[in-house]
Amino acid sequence: MTENDFIAGISRRFPKQPPVLVGIGDDGAAVQVTGQRPVIVVTDMLLDGTHFHLSEIDPRLAGRKAMAVNLSDLAAMAARPTAAFVSLAVPVNRSRLPANFLDRLYDGFEELTRQYNFSLAGGDTNSWEGSFAVNVCLLGVPVSDTIPLRSGAQPGDLLYVSGPLGGSLHHQRHLLFSPRFDAAEWLVSHTKLTAMMDISDGLSMDLSRMMLASGTGALLEAAAIPIHEDVPGQLSPEARLTAALGDGEDFELLFTVPEDRATALAEAPLPLRFHCVGRVVEEPGLRIRTLSGDIATVAASGWQHQV
Amino acid sequence: MTENDFIAGISRRFPKQPPVLVGIGDDGAAVQVTGQRPVIVVTDMLLDGTHFHLSEIDPRLAGRKAMAVNLSDLAAMAARPTAAFVSLAVPVNRSRLPANFLDRLYDGFEELTRQYNFSLAGGDTNSWEGSFAVNVCLLGVPVSDTIPLRSGAQPGDLLYVSGPLGGSLHHQRHLLFSPRFDAAEWLVSHTKLTAMMDISDGLSMDLSRMMLASGTGALLEAAAIPIHEDVPGQLSPEARLTAALGDGEDFELLFTVPEDRATALAEAPLPLRFHCVGRVVEEPGLRIRTLSGDIATVAASGWQHQV
Repeated sequence: MTENDFIAGISRRFPKQPPVLVGIGDDGAAVQVTGQRPVIVVTDMLLDGTHFHLSEIDPRLAGRKAMAVNLSDLAAMAARPTAAFVSLAVPVNRSRLPANFLDRLYDGFEELTRQYNFSLAGGDTNSWEGSFAVNVCLLGVPVSDTIPLRSGAQPGDLLYVSGPLGGSLHHQRHLLFSPRFDAAEWLVSHTKLTAMMDISDGLSMDLSRMMLASGTGALLEAAAIPIHEDVPGQLSPEARLTAALGDGEDFELLFTVPEDRATALAEAPLPLRFHCVGRVVEEPGLRIRTLSGDIATVAASGWQHQV
Repeated sequence: MTENDFIAGISRRFPKQPPVLVGIGDDGAAVQVTGQRPVIVVTDMLLDGTHFHLSEIDPRLAGRKAMAVNLSDLAAMAARPTAAFVSLAVPVNRSRLPANFLDRLYDGFEELTRQYNFSLAGGDTNSWEGSFAVNVCLLGVPVSDTIPLRSGAQPGDLLYVSGPLGGSLHHQRHLLFSPRFDAAEWLVSHTKLTAMMDISDGLSMDLSRMMLASGTGALLEAAAIPIHEDVPGQLSPEARLTAALGDGEDFELLFTVPEDRATALAEAPLPLRFHCVGRVVEEPGLRIRTLSGDIATVAASGWQHQV
C-alpha cells in the first residue's frame, strides 16, 4: 500500500471531531484547545539511513534537519513555532556514531530554537538495539486568522512555488535549508491564499496531493518551473525538469492564489521571489505543457513511503 | 550517561521561555498558546524489542500501549486528551509481522480514542530497514486550574499511590492498563495535590525523580506499599517488595498531599482506592522502614535508559 492510500484510509477511520478544526491530511493540524486562535501541531519522524546517513554527516545536521522539516510544515500552515517535543531512539551500541553524538544532535536543535525563538519543552529518550530515529512534534500559533490548507484551491487559481526546485539531496540543501516563514507571513498578509503546503516529496507528488484534496487538477508550465542550481547543468533540459518535479526535499512553499489577487506577488520585497508555475483546472490529475509545447500527463513521481 | 543525567543537562541547556509554563522534567509540558488555560503536551516513543515484542503480541496491543502510556502521562498532569499525533517507522520487510499489521495497530489506537473521546489528528508514516518504532504526541486540556507537577512536594506531606505495584511486565498489565483519569480528576477536585506523576519506571525510580524535583526526600513504609497480585505469592516478602519498588510499568499515580488534607482520600468512592506509602522529608534521598522495622536507604532501582 502506498503512503497516500494508507493516509486516506486512516483519515476515513478517524474523522476529526471538536476541538480539532483541521485533522489528518494537511501539513499540520489545528486544534481549538482554548481561546480564540487554534494551536497548530505538526510532527515528523526522521530515520537514519532514510532521511540522512549518520555515517556521512555531522549529527548536528541530523538534529537541524529533524527540527527544520517540522518548521517547514509549520510555515506552510502560516504559523510560528512556540514549543518543540523531541523523542529519540538511540542505538545502545554507539561505536559507529561520532563522539558526543547527543550533544551535537542537540546543537542542531538549538541552532533553530534560538534562531526562531521557541522552546524545546519536552520529549522522550530511549535506547535500543535498532538504528537512530528521531521524532519532533512542534506546536505553533497562526500568524493571522488565515490558516492555509491543501484543500482550498479553485479552478482558475494560479499556482506558485517560493523558490527553485531539484537537486536538494545531492547538495546537502535538505540539511541546511531555511523554513519559509518570511514568505508565508508575507503571503498571508499581502494576498489571498486558497491553498498552501510545503514541497517535501517533490513538486509532482505534493501538487497531486494538493489537487486531490481540493478536488481539482493542475496544468503546469514546464518553461516556468524554476530549476535549482543544484541540478547539474550538463543534464538535458528534460532531465533537469524531471529533477525539479520529482527530487523532493525542496522545502519550498507550494501555493495557489486567485488570478485577480496575484499581481501583488510580483512586488514582494527581496529576497522573496515567487514563481508562477501553472494553473489550477477543473479536470483532476496533473498535466504539463512541455518545453516543446505539447500537453502531457505528469505521473506523481516524487517520494512516498510504501507501508 | 543515565537518562536522568541526560535530561538534567538538556533542561539546563533549553530553559523554558514564554509561552511555555511547564517545560522539560515533568510528565508533560504546559504551553499557554492562547486563551485562559494552557494546553498540556505529552509524548512517548515505544520501540519493538524494548517496550513490547511484536513477535509475541497482537499489534493491537502495541498500538494500545503506545497510546495508553501517553494517556497515563496526561492523567498525571490532571488533563483530558483532545488530539493525538502518531508517527510510525515501519519495517520494509514485514514477513515477520502479522498480516494486517497496520490495521491492527490502529485498532489499538482506536480503542482508546473512542473510549476517551479524542481525535487522532495527524502523524507521519515512514518505512525503513529498521525495527518498528511508534511515537505518540498527545494534546490535552487541564480539568481544573490545578496542574500538578513533580516539583511541589513539601516535607511533612503524605505520599500516596493509586493502586498496587509490581509484576506488570510479566502479566501483560503493561499492555492492558487503564490510565488513571478518574483518580486524577477526583484528586484535583477533592484534595490538595502538591505533586503528582505516573509510575512508569518503578516506584523507587519515579519517587526519586519527584523528590529531586521537589528538593526533598522520602521515607517509605514497606508494610504499607500495596503489592499487585501479579507479583508471585511464593516469593519472599523482601522479593515481593523489591518487585513493587522496581518492576515499573505500573502506570499508577504517585502523588503527595499535605497531611491535613489527606482525610478526604479515605472517603474516595470505589473503585478509587489510594494507598499511603510514606511521607516526604527534608533530607534528600529515599529511605524505607523495612518489614523488620529498620530504616534503610533505597537505591533508585527502576528502569532508566542509558543514553
